[in-house]
Amino acid sequence: MRTNIIAEILTVGTEILLGNIVNHNAAFLSRELAALGVSVYRHTSVGDNAERLAAAFARAFEDADIVITTGGLGPTLDDITKYVAADFFGLETEIHEESRRRIFARYDSQFTGRDLPENVERNAIIPCGARVFPNDNGAAPGICVEYNPANTSHKLASQVRSRNLQGKLLIMLPGPPHEMQPMFSDYVAAFLREKSGLVFVSRTLKIIGRGETAVESALRDLIDAQTNPTIAPYAKVGEVHVRVTARQARRVPEAAHSLEVGCDCRNIEDAADLLAPVCDEIYARLGEQIYAEDNVTLAEVVVSALKKNNLTLALAESCTGGLIAAKIVDIPGCSSIFREGFVTYSNEAKIARLGVSEETLAAHGAVSAETAAAMAEGAAKAAGADIGLSVTGIAGPDGGTAEKPVGLVYIGLYVKGKNAVERHNLLGNRSVIRTRTAIFALDFLRRSV
Amino acid sequence: MRTNIIAEILTVGTEILLGNIVNHNAAFLSRELAALGVSVYRHTSVGDNAERLAAAFARAFEDADIVITTGGLGPTLDDITKYVAADFFGLETEIHEESRRRIFARYDSQFTGRDLPENVERNAIIPCGARVFPNDNGAAPGICVEYNPANTSHKLASQVRSRNLQGKLLIMLPGPPHEMQPMFSDYVAAFLREKSGLVFVSRTLKIIGRGETAVESALRDLIDAQTNPTIAPYAKVGEVHVRVTARQARRVPEAAHSLEVGCDCRNIEDAADLLAPVCDEIYARLGEQIYAEDNVTLAEVVVSALKKNNLTLALAESCTGGLIAAKIVDIPGCSSIFREGFVTYSNEAKIARLGVSEETLAAHGAVSAETAAAMAEGAAKAAGADIGLSVTGIAGPDGGTAEKPVGLVYIGLYVKGKNAVERHNLLGNRSVIRTRTAIFALDFLRRSV
Repeated sequence: MRTNIIAEILTVGTEILLGNIVNHNAAFLSRELAALGVSVYRHTSVGDNAERLAAAFARAFEDADIVITTGGLGPTLDDITKYVAADFFGLETEIHEESRRRIFARYDSQFTGRDLPENVERNAIIPCGARVFPNDNGAAPGICVEYNPANTSHKLASQVRSRNLQGKLLIMLPGPPHEMQPMFSDYVAAFLREKSGLVFVSRTLKIIGRGETAVESALRDLIDAQTNPTIAPYAKVGEVHVRVTARQARRVPEAAHSLEVGCDCRNIEDAADLLAPVCDEIYARLGEQIYAEDNVTLAEVVVSALKKNNLTLALAESCTGGLIAAKIVDIPGCSSIFREGFVTYSNEAKIARLGVSEETLAAHGAVSAETAAAMAEGAAKAAGADIGLSVTGIAGPDGGTAEKPVGLVYIGLYVKGKNAVERHNLLGNRSVIRTRTAIFALDFLRRSV
Repeated sequence: MRTNIIAEILTVGTEILLGNIVNHNAAFLSRELAALGVSVYRHTSVGDNAERLAAAFARAFEDADIVITTGGLGPTLDDITKYVAADFFGLETEIHEESRRRIFARYDSQFTGRDLPENVERNAIIPCGARVFPNDNGAAPGICVEYNPANTSHKLASQVRSRNLQGKLLIMLPGPPHEMQPMFSDYVAAFLREKSGLVFVSRTLKIIGRGETAVESALRDLIDAQTNPTIAPYAKVGEVHVRVTARQARRVPEAAHSLEVGCDCRNIEDAADLLAPVCDEIYARLGEQIYAEDNVTLAEVVVSALKKNNLTLALAESCTGGLIAAKIVDIPGCSSIFREGFVTYSNEAKIARLGVSEETLAAHGAVSAETAAAMAEGAAKAAGADIGLSVTGIAGPDGGTAEKPVGLVYIGLYVKGKNAVERHNLLGNRSVIRTRTAIFALDFLRRSV
């Protein structure tokens, strides 16, 4: 069994090269393949052009064991992927009867009264002898072609032999994500798991309060010494993610441990055991700056911490103008902790709604520690909440001065009678400064409850 | 002068191959290059691996005149793009003094009191003799390398010659979109316009209130008859964009007409003349559903309409939880029209802040036309604003019932004593429903002032 299978993801469609659609398929397939222990060394996108698609196949199979395509399987004239693939492997095409039946059944059941689209049968055409993955959410099935000299048409045999495709696989999937993603998860993944010699498990530690270089220097020796697991920091707007990935040679599953075809649970546990000591060491070094792991968001962490401690929250936002409230309300069930939010961009609103005194505004200005503190306390009291969180700052592009430059932000936090203020100098355009401010404000709250 | 320049977009970063980030940069650059008349035949993504990156350069330059990379320009050890490029072109590297000064000045002005990150100087390293594009939103400058035998180091001369790079260009841009996109628009576009044999001019008409298929059928005959200009509809969340593009053979600019390097104004005017009649026809058919063109956002349209009419605005948001306020505050100078926003997710807040009566809430529920109207009127009166805009709905995933399903949304608008309410049934997950609601609310306001 191979221990390192190399895959290339080849997305087909002129709309990608025109920038009319963003290539989410490549990201989805990359995540899934990484979890299966298949290494992705390259993404390639080409248009609906037979010559350039054939060249892309040739280049991909120079390096890759498996090439996975998305797009170009439909019935219209610019859907050419499977025909170019058939030529490339020296195969004729045929109608796949079962797919043809599925397609007509689908239209009978779901599109009664509608005319059958032109050429719908073309969805069922496949290269002779190809394996088919059913499409439960659309017409065009997925297709897997494996090189087989026996099937090769004589006129193409020699040129196909020269491509040295022995043992290589081409998997063609439909372009629409709502068709491709379930097809991959339900059928293709199990098929590929059998081919992979490794199981990969990873944890992503999410960090706020240190830049990428600072995180990297803090972990320098670990990163330099990394073999298995590997450690990789990624910079995001306002935060840094550290991904720790462990691999394990794959063992044949025992029925007792295997919950689904191809899943070896003991393997996954073993790999997870490799992650624990490294992650513990990162926690020891970066401590509370790690706010969560994997898909848990900062807002989720804050909302569940407030729920756990039976604390209620009120917000007073100036330059963020509702961004923080929107992140809280994005969490289902936030209503039990979120009293209300005040978007007080104007001084009048800060005075009327939050009881910030005109003296404070006059003496220190709207962007000051004093105003931030008064806003937080005012929001908590007006809303009858345990906690008030406030933001006031200069998001730019205008309004900056020598002593109060664009990017200067104060975050106020009032918790049961106690005031605290944090000051930040942020870089970026108006929208980046506002986004970072919202993140730092939520993180200030996270560290305080 | 070439009439068809071929470009390849090469995105660099292991996080792309792992699927940790979606490749928005390739989509942005593809759109911009199409508008400049540069043909993109391929996207390629490779990881932070010197050998595979060098191979990608070699393959890209086999077909392309211009290769544009994003990513790998930073100061950390896995940022290798510019070093691999220098080797590929046979160049030594040097510190670019002006960039070095900019970087330190940036930290002095905005990071007072913070330590300068380790290796920050590495951001200013470039291949010897390369052209630099300033980074106004980050540290690492953009870099343009043009093959020049004179600069080639002797030990590499022969292998570089064999690559046949005569007249070819490598443009390296930073990975973070908020750094890369303005750099491209402000500096790289004018530079590339010089190289292109065609002038492309396009107008994007932005539509709210019709789906993509409805827009397409309304314009079917125009789309079928299109040659120059071309017409292409694109579906976005909550809106549809129709891009109309005209092309013109490029003439050498006359100083008198050229306002900026690489801009041939007569050309652009000629192409613009081709656009006008087609756009007029689209306006005639879709009328007020077109809210703006090109980069003008819905929030900008609303803010300037309110400014023009000397009207002030207050917001009351339930399920959107501050999204609408955040869009308004995103517009610099909104303070003259935006009084304040109330995020009243709870019934208590709707009662205390907006004066919604307990009877209304009891009789009709929080998600009802009556509550929406009361929220809008209450917000306007509490804030002393001319206009109150409110939103209340069921964003899901829970809380839906048979007669009030997930996606049911009411938008209330109170303008100088008059109440109006719009009802929507929206599809999608919690975040899509909230985003669409915010768009429809702002559009309701736009159509009413």
